[in-house]
Amino acid sequence: MCFTERVRRAADPIWQAYFTHPFVTGIGDGSLSVEKFRFFLLQDYLYLYDYAKVFALGLLKSGIPEEMRFFSSNVDAVLNGEMNTHRAYMKRLGISDGEAESVRMSLANRAYTNYMLSVGYSGGVPEVLAAILACSWSYAEIGERLAAAPGAAAHPFYGEWITGYAGGEYQATNRALIERMDAAAAGLSPARLDALEQVFLDCSRFEGQFWQMSWEMAE
Amino acid sequence: MCFTERVRRAADPIWQAYFTHPFVTGIGDGSLSVEKFRFFLLQDYLYLYDYAKVFALGLLKSGIPEEMRFFSSNVDAVLNGEMNTHRAYMKRLGISDGEAESVRMSLANRAYTNYMLSVGYSGGVPEVLAAILACSWSYAEIGERLAAAPGAAAHPFYGEWITGYAGGEYQATNRALIERMDAAAAGLSPARLDALEQVFLDCSRFEGQFWQMSWEMAE
Amino acid sequence: MCFTERVRRAADPIWQAYFTHPFVTGIGDGSLSVEKFRFFLLQDYLYLYDYAKVFALGLLKSGIPEEMRFFSSNVDAVLNGEMNTHRAYMKRLGISDGEAESVRMSLANRAYTNYMLSVGYSGGVPEVLAAILACSWSYAEIGERLAAAPGAAAHPFYGEWITGYAGGEYQATNRALIERMDAAAAGLSPARLDALEQVFLDCSRFEGQFWQMSWEMAE
Amino acid sequence: MCFTERVRRAADPIWQAYFTHPFVTGIGDGSLSVEKFRFFLLQDYLYLYDYAKVFALGLLKSGIPEEMRFFSSNVDAVLNGEMNTHRAYMKRLGISDGEAESVRMSLANRAYTNYMLSVGYSGGVPEVLAAILACSWSYAEIGERLAAAPGAAAHPFYGEWITGYAGGEYQATNRALIERMDAAAAGLSPARLDALEQVFLDCSRFEGQFWQMSWEMAE
Repeated sequence: MCFTERVRRAADPIWQAYFTHPFVTGIGDGSLSVEKFRFFLLQDYLYLYDYAKVFALGLLKSGIPEEMRFFSSNVDAVLNGEMNTHRAYMKRLGISDGEAESVRMSLANRAYTNYMLSVGYSGGVPEVLAAILACSWSYAEIGERLAAAPGAAAHPFYGEWITGYAGGEYQATNRALIERMDAAAAGLSPARLDALEQVFLDCSRFEGQFWQMSWEMAE
Repeated sequence: MCFTERVRRAADPIWQAYFTHPFVTGIGDGSLSVEKFRFFLLQDYLYLYDYAKVFALGLLKSGIPEEMRFFSSNVDAVLNGEMNTHRAYMKRLGISDGEAESVRMSLANRAYTNYMLSVGYSGGVPEVLAAILACSWSYAEIGERLAAAPGAAAHPFYGEWITGYAGGEYQATNRALIERMDAAAAGLSPARLDALEQVFLDCSRFEGQFWQMSWEMAE
Repeated sequence: MCFTERVRRAADPIWQAYFTHPFVTGIGDGSLSVEKFRFFLLQDYLYLYDYAKVFALGLLKSGIPEEMRFFSSNVDAVLNGEMNTHRAYMKRLGISDGEAESVRMSLANRAYTNYMLSVGYSGGVPEVLAAILACSWSYAEIGERLAAAPGAAAHPFYGEWITGYAGGEYQATNRALIERMDAAAAGLSPARLDALEQVFLDCSRFEGQFWQMSWEMAE
Repeated sequence: MCFTERVRRAADPIWQAYFTHPFVTGIGDGSLSVEKFRFFLLQDYLYLYDYAKVFALGLLKSGIPEEMRFFSSNVDAVLNGEMNTHRAYMKRLGISDGEAESVRMSLANRAYTNYMLSVGYSGGVPEVLAAILACSWSYAEIGERLAAAPGAAAHPFYGEWITGYAGGEYQATNRALIERMDAAAAGLSPARLDALEQVFLDCSRFEGQFWQMSWEMAE
């Protein structure tokens, strides 16, 4: 069993709760209130600035040119790719970039992103990848699951969100990350693998708190 | 109004909730179950290892010899001073050092300490001090308040905890930290002071979550 | 006098020595041996991987979205833009990417890049910019000066190097960096400005050592 | 062959040059001018502040309580132990602490300490130890060699320096560091061991430059 299979399995109880969370199912069946989505969107937008920083830490900790380019292109993909989906929604909701950036990050959001940053500052490339992976991978699974429901991807408001994460480009980016995690984990000591699993599980729990925070619109 | 007065005032609603929290009042009137205290003690013990690291970040970010020595002696005070109080309780509860260190840090605990570490890695001495201060100062106030209740400091089990934080040595260490925070904040731009206040408020909220987590014994 | 004028003036004696250094004048008049240039090119190629990391540190220390995008696009410009000029020369000299990356960085090169990285890890955005600027700006001035000599830019071998740094794109990127340095320095305390000047001067000296190391082909 | 034997052997040509360097032999036979020693002493004093920071990075990167205490006690030993020898000499030479701290660090000194800091920020405990070891160990060998020469340890001016590094306390501290390096290197991949050797060799070269810089009194 490769490392990502191991940690995915360990995190499964936490992840199953995403799939049945009212926020997530509400995107899928269109029942989620736009007000809640708006709250989530803005917090997620701020999250991505820090998420880009975690990739930058990967670049900093890497001594391999090809790997550095991978992290660099992911920084760019977050700041200029994934955030464009957010900006498209912000436009539809009449939110300017300036408005979005003046929103206050919730404590749960800060707790999550600073956890990833701290892990990246003190660790190496494997720790950075383990911290990054829970978000990327769980969104890929959520996107796929929601897109599988008839009509969901065609929903006039939530369809774009679903197809963004279910789409080939996002899925390929996520698969590349999974492969890199396995490559980085190969040959590491059992103690370090345990610590990496802990990082993945912690981030999985922070993901769960993020959905709940969005549902409650809790600052 | 100096900076620490400003942030203490801003954090007051959060701090008032500590003073009336059943975990804290339970230490004061002796009604807290030893089981809950044991959970708290072990989480707090693990917390202190990371707290020592935040002081080490202060040393790293400082270019002033006297300030470096201040941070160094605080690293030592945490690892060899404050933790001794914990070890004394661990002995009374029959917990070995090894047992204590094998306990798993709760997610709320990790969220808090990694937040402080991330702030310290990315910031400078003022950010380190703002992150450190909420814990140190709130324990000083809690210690003083509890010690003021008749009989509390003489309680056969909780008395030692109360007198540890109410005592002159701890109070003086905390006052020195407050003075340093004010000195470090002097002359900083309004935007940076706002960011420092945010760090202090965030850590104050994490403190509140720590009491609640201990009350619920939530891993 | 803005901050960059101040530090440029302070560094002038160091910079004048670049302009008359036999390595630099040898590029200008075509008298530099290809062997020496090859040594320089490969060391500079390795340098750029670390230089990209210093920009990544800027992204990490920034809390301003626009500034983060600036640093991100510069990471990309170094890894995929400036390095392309190097790769074009490597191709002409029959050096593969793999060969280039297996070259051992000289001690002077390591000293320089680790200095920038250390300054960036411990400092903030102003420190990152001050560390980055000496290299970028001095190459812009060297490019301009060499291009002003009749025939230099048309030299069959060195012309491409000269026009790369004298060209509009590189010059504009460098001017943007200068402007950002001045913006970042505005409002900082005199003590911090002095420290930033020291960083700029140190890096200027490391630049001088880099030219000399290349001239001597010293590992 | 354990890791420290391997790297000591690899560094031997560099270290032999210390033992015959006129600065080092001049301490041993008392022929070194006090002016040169004074220059060295002050640069070394500033060096130690950064050296203490490298130990603090070890504490930050460690997840093992006993190891954290080791690094913490070494921070203290540098700031309050080794520096006392320097202060004793400063007193004899009529140099106040304030004067010492206002000296400008030479470029070679900055290059060395920032190299160690950069390695420590980006690496883990093994990298921190490899960066620290060249200085500690080479001074232990120099101290022992100089002390072995008849009369050297009794020299009215340089005797104290020699006995400081030849003495049991310093030698034991250094041996503990060597043992920790071997323990930290055990089980690491060949690629990482190669990188650690490079760090040790780089620092050994920086040590050589430090003696030469002191001999030339080069700022």
